[in-house]
Amino acid sequence: MNVITLTTDFGSANHAAGQINGIVWQIAPDARLVELTHQIPPGDLLTAQILLDYSVPYFPDGTVHLVLVGASGEDHRPIAARLGSQWFVGPDNGVITPLLERAEANRQTVEVFHANEPEYWLANQEPRVQWRQVLAPIAAHLARGVLITGIGDRINDPIRTSIPQPEVLENGWRGQVIQIDHFGNLAVNLKSFHLEGMGSVQVTINGVEIRGLARTFGDGQPGDLIALLDSSNRLSICVVNGSAASRLKVQVGTPVEVHPILEDQKD
Amino acid sequence: MNVITLTTDFGSANHAAGQINGIVWQIAPDARLVELTHQIPPGDLLTAQILLDYSVPYFPDGTVHLVLVGASGEDHRPIAARLGSQWFVGPDNGVITPLLERAEANRQTVEVFHANEPEYWLANQEPRVQWRQVLAPIAAHLARGVLITGIGDRINDPIRTSIPQPEVLENGWRGQVIQIDHFGNLAVNLKSFHLEGMGSVQVTINGVEIRGLARTFGDGQPGDLIALLDSSNRLSICVVNGSAASRLKVQVGTPVEVHPILEDQKD
Amino acid sequence: MNVITLTTDFGSANHAAGQINGIVWQIAPDARLVELTHQIPPGDLLTAQILLDYSVPYFPDGTVHLVLVGASGEDHRPIAARLGSQWFVGPDNGVITPLLERAEANRQTVEVFHANEPEYWLANQEPRVQWRQVLAPIAAHLARGVLITGIGDRINDPIRTSIPQPEVLENGWRGQVIQIDHFGNLAVNLKSFHLEGMGSVQVTINGVEIRGLARTFGDGQPGDLIALLDSSNRLSICVVNGSAASRLKVQVGTPVEVHPILEDQKD
Repeated sequence: MNVITLTTDFGSANHAAGQINGIVWQIAPDARLVELTHQIPPGDLLTAQILLDYSVPYFPDGTVHLVLVGASGEDHRPIAARLGSQWFVGPDNGVITPLLERAEANRQTVEVFHANEPEYWLANQEPRVQWRQVLAPIAAHLARGVLITGIGDRINDPIRTSIPQPEVLENGWRGQVIQIDHFGNLAVNLKSFHLEGMGSVQVTINGVEIRGLARTFGDGQPGDLIALLDSSNRLSICVVNGSAASRLKVQVGTPVEVHPILEDQKD
Repeated sequence: MNVITLTTDFGSANHAAGQINGIVWQIAPDARLVELTHQIPPGDLLTAQILLDYSVPYFPDGTVHLVLVGASGEDHRPIAARLGSQWFVGPDNGVITPLLERAEANRQTVEVFHANEPEYWLANQEPRVQWRQVLAPIAAHLARGVLITGIGDRINDPIRTSIPQPEVLENGWRGQVIQIDHFGNLAVNLKSFHLEGMGSVQVTINGVEIRGLARTFGDGQPGDLIALLDSSNRLSICVVNGSAASRLKVQVGTPVEVHPILEDQKD
Repeated sequence: MNVITLTTDFGSANHAAGQINGIVWQIAPDARLVELTHQIPPGDLLTAQILLDYSVPYFPDGTVHLVLVGASGEDHRPIAARLGSQWFVGPDNGVITPLLERAEANRQTVEVFHANEPEYWLANQEPRVQWRQVLAPIAAHLARGVLITGIGDRINDPIRTSIPQPEVLENGWRGQVIQIDHFGNLAVNLKSFHLEGMGSVQVTINGVEIRGLARTFGDGQPGDLIALLDSSNRLSICVVNGSAASRLKVQVGTPVEVHPILEDQKD
């Protein structure tokens, strides 16, 4: 089995998905192509990074992730990377930085290659459009077992574009909303490790205070505003059966502060 | 062969589809996952019920339908059901009621189970998010042949949320628009059996009368307003090559009356 | 291997995709169904034609393309065509004309059949909805190896609906914008052969002049307005990392003129 996932900012009315499917069937007829989304806002690396951060851990070893976000319009190197047991193919624009950093932090294999060996490019056209002539075929070749070391030169300087980091306060953290999902739930750039040792916490966003973390949605009643750690151990702010984004009138970038609840403040 | 269909209200820009695909590949690498839609409006059970009512009969025996609508934000039991020759997995919120009622009416097998046996849950995380830790893995296990009797306790009281029923009039029926599709066609909660024995019928909606049922779209000219029975034997009101919803200014819930055409009214 | 692609104007919230998937699994369990898009604007043949023009060449020999655009609401003959090494199934409304013309121009096999042999229709329902009862099953049967000659009578008069042709000027061409993509890039109905022998060209659209063709996006800086030949050798007008559609305030149908740059005009 060999799975290729596809994440793009091409929109779902575009011919690009068809071309990529066709190229993959031609090169790797046994591969399975899973389209994670074509709805990343054009060029929005942060949204793509967060989607991958949530999705990648659920895929089996050997999965190839083809990430075509910000892939047209600029002249990035085409790269492929082995990060732990999975592969990533895309333009060298930093879209895989959080996955790269996680693999490094976990001391997993990290190998990045410039896909500059034309043997694995699409042969019947000049390489005018990099994602089609180079990146999609490379993903298909990796899925059918071509060694990543054969696709070009190893590099040590991939572009890095990190998810914005939170700021340490004297007594807590100041992060920000980094994603608002379809339901109006807010993802914050604070993870469980930031909150370790703080005991009970109080979350403040746009002047509204949320005391304590819920363990699950089921802890609240419909309409309750709650904070909890989501499946990526990231702080999430939600309204049960409602939209936290509308209730709190926030957007990506809105600051979020987390402080411990002092003993004499406790109910 | 084992097919899993997926129907959600997560939207197509969400990481949920990726996580579900990943979980399914991990557990049931030979399954085929078909995404029916991610565009059910959040929590809209009726729209999901109608989509399933139209789609399920076309799938082969043994298909597993994973229905994640209204699946976050509330604390429903995770359930799986065998209805006739197909399987359904989802939160116990009534989304499968019309299929359950149809199986009961047709005296088909109906078995519903509470998926409370952790053996088939996703092991590497606490079950914070039910659709991911419990429902998606259960669907994958059923697709790879696990017996439904092994997933937990049999229950006899699944939540029931029916499609609104029409009202009997002295001389006909009063139903309502229950869905408006992409083209502006209206689906009405009246089926062919409601109209049996009425002979020629007259359909009234927002003060407009449609006399007789067309057999097919081809019976009308572009711009004609017609009523016909659709592939689920449901009354549908359409404008040939146009939108009945705009023409008639209706919405979900607008009443629709059907009466027999009396002999002396006939043209 | 047998691939079926699906291109529709049904929208992605519709039950049609589910029904088609189900029908295909029933008839051709080994086929792979690739959904190119469900987002063609209702009845918009031109958008579908352009999408197919870009996508079809990337699919392997033997692929079956099921094209359901303008497929409801009118009474077209159901047809299937062999064009070169690929198959097309859809209503006889001209949606495949550009592919037919290309196959004719390249002296490839062109065979068109009226799918009027009920043996390959869906048997369990009257043929009320042509795309479901006739077209989807025919595509599945072709994918599993049924000979196209068996599906009905050969015809020589399929409806033809061509992409609008450019006009020859005394010194160049006047074409038009025929598609605006997700990024605001403009596709023009002029191909590389129209420009042959013109040397350096100047492209004029809405009073704005673009001198020379870029070879690739990488030739421009972010914000540059450029013209280039895209992967189908079609003239495309783009803003690097931006939207040419917004910059130039154009729509489908806006005229585009191409003239050679005279020697004494050159920089």
